[in-house]
Parts: sequence; C-alpha cells; structure tokens
Amino acid sequence: MKQLLPELTDVAHTMADAASSAILPHFRSTDLGTENKDAGGYDPVTVADRAAEQAMRAVLADKRPMDAILGEEFGAQSGQNGLTWVLDPIDGTRGFVAGTPTWGVLIAVGDEKGPALGMIDQPYIGERFWGADGSAWLKGPRGEGPIATRAPRRLSDAVLFTTFPEIGTAAERAGFEAVADQVKLVRYGMDCYAYALLAAGQIDLVIEAGLNSYDIQAPIGLIEAAGGVVTDWSGQPVHEGGRAVAASHPDVHRAALDILAGFV
Amino acid sequence: MKQLLPELTDVAHTMADAASSAILPHFRSTDLGTENKDAGGYDPVTVADRAAEQAMRAVLADKRPMDAILGEEFGAQSGQNGLTWVLDPIDGTRGFVAGTPTWGVLIAVGDEKGPALGMIDQPYIGERFWGADGSAWLKGPRGEGPIATRAPRRLSDAVLFTTFPEIGTAAERAGFEAVADQVKLVRYGMDCYAYALLAAGQIDLVIEAGLNSYDIQAPIGLIEAAGGVVTDWSGQPVHEGGRAVAASHPDVHRAALDILAGFV
Repeated sequence: MKQLLPELTDVAHTMADAASSAILPHFRSTDLGTENKDAGGYDPVTVADRAAEQAMRAVLADKRPMDAILGEEFGAQSGQNGLTWVLDPIDGTRGFVAGTPTWGVLIAVGDEKGPALGMIDQPYIGERFWGADGSAWLKGPRGEGPIATRAPRRLSDAVLFTTFPEIGTAAERAGFEAVADQVKLVRYGMDCYAYALLAAGQIDLVIEAGLNSYDIQAPIGLIEAAGGVVTDWSGQPVHEGGRAVAASHPDVHRAALDILAGFV
Repeated sequence: MKQLLPELTDVAHTMADAASSAILPHFRSTDLGTENKDAGGYDPVTVADRAAEQAMRAVLADKRPMDAILGEEFGAQSGQNGLTWVLDPIDGTRGFVAGTPTWGVLIAVGDEKGPALGMIDQPYIGERFWGADGSAWLKGPRGEGPIATRAPRRLSDAVLFTTFPEIGTAAERAGFEAVADQVKLVRYGMDCYAYALLAAGQIDLVIEAGLNSYDIQAPIGLIEAAGGVVTDWSGQPVHEGGRAVAASHPDVHRAALDILAGFV
C-alpha cells in the first residue's frame, strides 16, 4: 500500500477536480431539485451528488479499474486487489441545498484495515485537505502547505464540533452533552468541514453518531495523517461507521473516551 | 439619505477592504490570542476584532468625519449629521477562533429609523454581500451580480437557520423550537453568514435572540434591500437589538410571527 500512495494521491486529486466540475454548476442554483431519501425525515439527494459520484467513478474506471468502490449514491463495486475507494460525493447535502460553503467531497482509499489516504475538498471556497502516510496538506485561498493537528490541551480549553445538536439517539445525545459540558466551546453545523478543521490544527474534537463508512473514512485517513486519532466511542476502529470521536491528540482522545464510556 | 447611498456604498467597500487586510493575517494563526469578555461564559475577542474596527474607523475619519459610529469593540462616537455607522468587525468570533469560514465583517449605516445600507463581508472565501435602496449584490468566487430573497413558500418547505441551539432564555428556545418543528430543514452555526444566505435567496428564515444592534443592523440593511423582512418577534423594528426574525418574504415572515406570538 505505502509505495502506491503517491499514485493514489494523484488519482484522488483528479477525482476531486472532476467532482468539483460536476457539482459547482448546481451549487446555489435556483432550480436545484432535491429528492428525499428518508420517508420519515429529510435526507436530500440532488443531481449534483449523483453527477459528482459518476464523475469520480469515471476517473477510477480509467485509472484504477482493478480497485473496488463504495459510494454513497451508487453503492458497492467489487475489485480484484484488496483496495477500496470510499466516496461521498457531497457530505453535508443539507448544508449544500441551503447554500452553505462547508459541505465537501470525501475521498478515501484503503484496505480491510481502513483508509490509508483521506481527502476533503470544498470546491466553492477552493480548499482541499488531504493526508496519507503521516503527512497532511491544505491547498486553499492562501496557497498550499503542510497541516497538522494541534497540541494537546485540557478539555476545559478544547473546542468541540458536531453537526446536529440531536446527535442521534437520546443516549448518544447525552454522551455528546457530557463531553460538551467539559469543553470551552461547542460549535455546530459544519459537516465534514469540522474534521478538516481538526486536521488543520484549528479545533480539538469532533463527536458524531449514526455515521456511514463513506462519512468517516476520508476524515480518518486525513486526521490520522495529520497526527490525530479517530475511533468509535469505545476506542475501536470506526471505518465501518457508527459513533465517531476524532481528536487532535491521543491525550485529548482519551479524555473524551473516559466520558463517553458511560454512554456506550 | 437616498442620494448619499452611492457614496456611502463606496465608503463601505473601502472599510471592508481595510477590515479584511487587518483580519486575515490572524485567521487560523497558531498564536492567535483570545480574551474572554464574559466572566460567566466564553465570549472571545481577539486582536483581529480590534485591528479591524480600528481600520474601519480610520477610513471613516478620513472620508466621513461628520458621521457617528457605534462599534462592538470601541463603542460610540457622536456625529453631526444624523448618520451613524454600526460596525461589528468580526461577527462570529467563536467561529473565527475555531477556523470556520462563516464569520463576517458587518457594516451598516443609517439614521434613527434604522440602517439604509448593509454589508456582510467574508474575506477568507472572498465573498461580499451588500444592499441599499432596493438592490442587493454578491461579489464572490464566481463573480459579481444581483441577489434577491427567494419566492415565498409554506413553512413545511422552508429552511430555517440559527447560530446556537440554546437560542437564549428557555422561553426563547421554546419559541424557536415551535417554528423549527414546522419547517423542512433546520441548520446551525453560521452566525451572520445565515443572513447573507437569506439575502442571496438560499434560505427562508433566520431566528435569533439576544442580539446587539451591531449584530443585526447590517443584516437588516442587506435583507431589506434584497426583498426580505427583518423585525423583532412582535413584528416591531429590531435595529436596536433583541430577538430577530428575518424572512425571505412578508408571507413567510407572517407565518413565523404567528407562531412566535405565543412566546413574546
């Protein structure tokens, strides 16, 4: 895997470029249609989600035809070499349909042990975060350079993000709130952008629940490369989805797990 | 006032440019210090807030020395012509210190009846929203053009934003949640950027409480110019702060007020 990462990183950039071209014409379009995937709630999917995943799959068909694919919109395609690309063409579709600039294209690739490379791309801002093999990078409005998670601090000095204040089940909400009660600042609503901020050394913790593998694999690949830790609420691997806690440093991660242990 | 608006708009652009130059070197800086203005909570202020307000005041001293000023960080300065500039150098300082790109520079100017011009600038993305005298504009990554609030729709199809799920007092939270229960989608965490999205026709409602005049005057000026309505929860003027409801259209505004009437 390791010797392949430079090539896989190049492919991921090409995929992100293709997704960007597919999505941006629809972003903030006044005639953007949405379908609801959730009969009991509101889980929108747009033509932009589907076009972006198709564009990324076309890149893989051309450059990595032996690799498997798991995508949010078009499901699983088997491969022949143990490598799987895990794709969320628009993470944060609710934010996307509301015009916010903090949705992202998620791209990960890895094997059964989890992602070895993760990329979060925000094409409207023109910001791309990616990492593999112990190095992480940001290319954005102010240029390109390395990023790393921030130094550890006490929970009482930490910044915690999640997307929805409801979090998930009542127990999951209680677990989140038990950590939230200990930190300096809690912020909401950023979807995958919160994981990007964590990788870039801006915040300390992201706690979420109810995730799918395609929501969390790119954040795992990126954050681990930047020096952070991402597990489930019991400290076990979370690349197959579920309840995630992402931290800037093992000490911060441990402090959050100690509280969440009462809710798992 | 009306014949002055083109000149005042030019001055506002110069102020926003000056604020941007003062803020961006500090954004995501690893040594950004914060002071806490709230002994009972966390209300950060940074060197960036202060430098940006000073930069804007320097523009006014040069170009509009007879106008009054009310700014978040440096308070009130009296004037001699009935015009007052109302400034929040960084609205969303909590988001700013967490690295999110949805804080903004707020600039308004008006008289005792309220703002006649409002501007919301997000310099990291490179997005500026402004409006006066029935016209509103966005200059951003995809160029410059007119914006307007969206067509009215039923609350069951509406998108509602607020910054904190706590909103304010228990009664204020209950009022917000009574509206939230009726809409299609609720999102959090965008600070002034939510008002910009409303002016740009992306969302239908923003409901907040506990606002200061410098938090809401720029949104009022912008949104009214774009075709929307901003009042307090009783339908009265809100340019002096308090509980705000901003809507895309008078019909949407009325529907929200009808619910909020039970909580004022």
